[in-house]
Amino acid sequence: MNTAEINVLEEIELDNPIFIEALPGLGHVGKLAADHMIDELGATKFAEIYSPTFPPQVLVKDEGIIENMYNELYYLRDVGEDNLDLIILVGNTQALSPEGQYLVCQEILDFVSKYDIDRIFTLGGMVTSPQPVENPRIFGAATNEANIELLKEAEIEIRVNDGGIVGASGLFLGLGVRRGIHGMCLMGETPGYFIDAESAEALLKKLSQILNFEINVEKLDERAEETRQMIARAQQMEQDLINKANAGNADDLRYIG
Amino acid sequence: MNTAEINVLEEIELDNPIFIEALPGLGHVGKLAADHMIDELGATKFAEIYSPTFPPQVLVKDEGIIENMYNELYYLRDVGEDNLDLIILVGNTQALSPEGQYLVCQEILDFVSKYDIDRIFTLGGMVTSPQPVENPRIFGAATNEANIELLKEAEIEIRVNDGGIVGASGLFLGLGVRRGIHGMCLMGETPGYFIDAESAEALLKKLSQILNFEINVEKLDERAEETRQMIARAQQMEQDLINKANAGNADDLRYIG
Amino acid sequence: MNTAEINVLEEIELDNPIFIEALPGLGHVGKLAADHMIDELGATKFAEIYSPTFPPQVLVKDEGIIENMYNELYYLRDVGEDNLDLIILVGNTQALSPEGQYLVCQEILDFVSKYDIDRIFTLGGMVTSPQPVENPRIFGAATNEANIELLKEAEIEIRVNDGGIVGASGLFLGLGVRRGIHGMCLMGETPGYFIDAESAEALLKKLSQILNFEINVEKLDERAEETRQMIARAQQMEQDLINKANAGNADDLRYIG
Amino acid sequence: MNTAEINVLEEIELDNPIFIEALPGLGHVGKLAADHMIDELGATKFAEIYSPTFPPQVLVKDEGIIENMYNELYYLRDVGEDNLDLIILVGNTQALSPEGQYLVCQEILDFVSKYDIDRIFTLGGMVTSPQPVENPRIFGAATNEANIELLKEAEIEIRVNDGGIVGASGLFLGLGVRRGIHGMCLMGETPGYFIDAESAEALLKKLSQILNFEINVEKLDERAEETRQMIARAQQMEQDLINKANAGNADDLRYIG
Repeated sequence: MNTAEINVLEEIELDNPIFIEALPGLGHVGKLAADHMIDELGATKFAEIYSPTFPPQVLVKDEGIIENMYNELYYLRDVGEDNLDLIILVGNTQALSPEGQYLVCQEILDFVSKYDIDRIFTLGGMVTSPQPVENPRIFGAATNEANIELLKEAEIEIRVNDGGIVGASGLFLGLGVRRGIHGMCLMGETPGYFIDAESAEALLKKLSQILNFEINVEKLDERAEETRQMIARAQQMEQDLINKANAGNADDLRYIG
Repeated sequence: MNTAEINVLEEIELDNPIFIEALPGLGHVGKLAADHMIDELGATKFAEIYSPTFPPQVLVKDEGIIENMYNELYYLRDVGEDNLDLIILVGNTQALSPEGQYLVCQEILDFVSKYDIDRIFTLGGMVTSPQPVENPRIFGAATNEANIELLKEAEIEIRVNDGGIVGASGLFLGLGVRRGIHGMCLMGETPGYFIDAESAEALLKKLSQILNFEINVEKLDERAEETRQMIARAQQMEQDLINKANAGNADDLRYIG
Repeated sequence: MNTAEINVLEEIELDNPIFIEALPGLGHVGKLAADHMIDELGATKFAEIYSPTFPPQVLVKDEGIIENMYNELYYLRDVGEDNLDLIILVGNTQALSPEGQYLVCQEILDFVSKYDIDRIFTLGGMVTSPQPVENPRIFGAATNEANIELLKEAEIEIRVNDGGIVGASGLFLGLGVRRGIHGMCLMGETPGYFIDAESAEALLKKLSQILNFEINVEKLDERAEETRQMIARAQQMEQDLINKANAGNADDLRYIG
Repeated sequence: MNTAEINVLEEIELDNPIFIEALPGLGHVGKLAADHMIDELGATKFAEIYSPTFPPQVLVKDEGIIENMYNELYYLRDVGEDNLDLIILVGNTQALSPEGQYLVCQEILDFVSKYDIDRIFTLGGMVTSPQPVENPRIFGAATNEANIELLKEAEIEIRVNDGGIVGASGLFLGLGVRRGIHGMCLMGETPGYFIDAESAEALLKKLSQILNFEINVEKLDERAEETRQMIARAQQMEQDLINKANAGNADDLRYIG
């Protein structure tokens, strides 16, 4: 077993595809956006990736069926107005160890580089506060000025000198630029601790704007609406608890009085 | 030294054996069940496995004799009504590092695959509560529908969408299904922090039902009975302490009064 | 990808250069001193170093441009009165894992050894107290008596039997002496938790004295002055808070009284 | 660099030597005993061992001279009444990572096995209580009955079924027995947190009894006496503090009274 075992399911040819990374991360923002793209645009899986650097476990899914920890590659042809070919990396995990992170990203990039990657987009989440936000912003960073300009044109907020992008979303850009492939990272604002469909929807809107394709976000919108209601209920419960506690104190005071 | 050093003690031929994994885990449920099978059915050890991914220590056993950390493979022929051949994996440890877990399981699976494994059974424990339970349930998961059906026929509770199976009991199934070998995991309900003979007995009953063999569980039953009495004594002591504490308080109150 | 990937940007010849290590560490004292040398003396970058043992991330710099984690080698020719050639190792990180530390230092030392290294200087910080000090001292240690004498001549305080030098500043000396290359470590006194320009300036003065070159430390002095003012403001604020708190207590006492 | 780099300083021939491991561990009991043997009996260093699995640092010793982390092999010929040849493994560290522990011990054992090792003795400490003991006992364990008998003849207490021997003292025995070399572990009772010369002296007496050689333990005795006085002073200070505290309370009571 190598650091990454890439099982190719279909030999394909693509025309200077764009590589989109969307592995699980903060709020699963990138993963959710990419999973939705795969469903709505009908992408085809062409490779499965396993690695001993993934968590040493399996997941138990619906009906008790076991699922390996994996990454997957999908492709799409002639997407949007610009007839773009896309390769999308999704999965249920990232490598566990720091060195595994580098090695798995490196091996995946080696593999997809055979398709003459044009650019790299990495999709992730960014925590600005532990509280859910009304309208999640999308933040961006890039490997060069040209891609920064594209981010600005899409009215994406540029992160400046504010720390790191950890994991696959950072490494694919860093490893890419070392071999001359440029790219950008889109990060949806999220509290990070729940699956954030609203942030994913906002992210997907910006991505489709930059890549000039249309996508029906209705299902993501429904899911985001469910999330909004879930948050609203949680906030109401919290408020009720505070009210109750205050009322309780009032009672206590009367009692003491 | 490879990741796993497998010392073959006897060259054997087996007829599409079933591979049973029962390395130490929660409550040592799987290990206890498999060790009992090995004793009662008279299994023969045919390979010893060592690895630098095991904990860097030796154990001091009876009479001060030192024991390496190891895994072992046993075989049995013509077991039960269906004349099944079995390979059983037991030992005193699992790999310590996440990557070691994958690599050791992979190497053992490579080795036993030479015997044309028919199916994989992994035996483990599952914690549902920190309290000992009266009649431990057996939970199951599997790599495909067919094996889920077998679990249901044996009235084993199917785990659904509830997280992961960590370590060898998960990995052997995940690595197996990637090479077309299907299987299932049986997990005995256990508080997890003591060697749980009662859960092991319940697990072994289900396993013997599925694999259609008979096994005398008297010794396991005795051991389970000892465990039950041990728990009862511990609970009685706890109750005595509570009573004493309450009585003490009562004394205190009288004293103050 | 090897443990360290060294990309040579320029094939150079040097005359028995001195190798100076100044990777990030306590108070970034060494790094700051070396970065200033590179700027002021106009050193030329001739190699970039990447490693999967570096933290698995990229940094977001000014204007949102992404920066890899890296080490870099610069050279200088005919420095100072003694016409010394220098190789300077700087960067934004050290290896994350203990074993990575050894392997990356080993590979870099293998690489620079091709230039017939004369001596090794490693630059670092040393924490003597969590409080900022007025005039940071410079401490030293070395691989042999001859270099200890040089340290003493420069009135550098010799560390004696007081623990370890952890990371690249220790390892390059240890790995060097094993292949017959001697050297010394200069450590600037620092509280360690802020970028300590004052300690870096003091360190650079001692280094330039030992290596017999002149360097304009004005910019470092400005930066140190800024740091001093920043510390003074922080201390003033702390004092104000204490005064306020005391005054508050006095008020409280009057109020209660 | 391999996992262990063994630099041979002298090519030697030995007559079925006994291999004694005494790397740093609890109370440095084994190391202290072996270092004393090396000094008193005039052993000769014949190999130095380095490894990237050792802690990534150097030590600063007397006069500011830097010392690598290392292991060393010494030999002695015709020791004691039985004219035994000995190889002694000492050093200032053990491997840091669990896997490094196995790999370094394995490589050292491969190396010394070329000398046709007769038996393995590993020397360590064992914590029975955090308090210093008056007459430290020596505990033992072994790879087989024959060596257990030797331990009993020397009136060494046999450890029974009581957990593990962690690190080099365990692994050399475990790895040895796997290749047919038997041995034993001697463990001096120690609180573990200071360098325990008294326990080392007791250990060395038992070792010299088993191996049938004489050794002047005067220096170790002096060092143990110093340790005893140090402990006595610490206990006196503790007692003084308790007395003072009680007296203080008495004062307090009078004051309140």
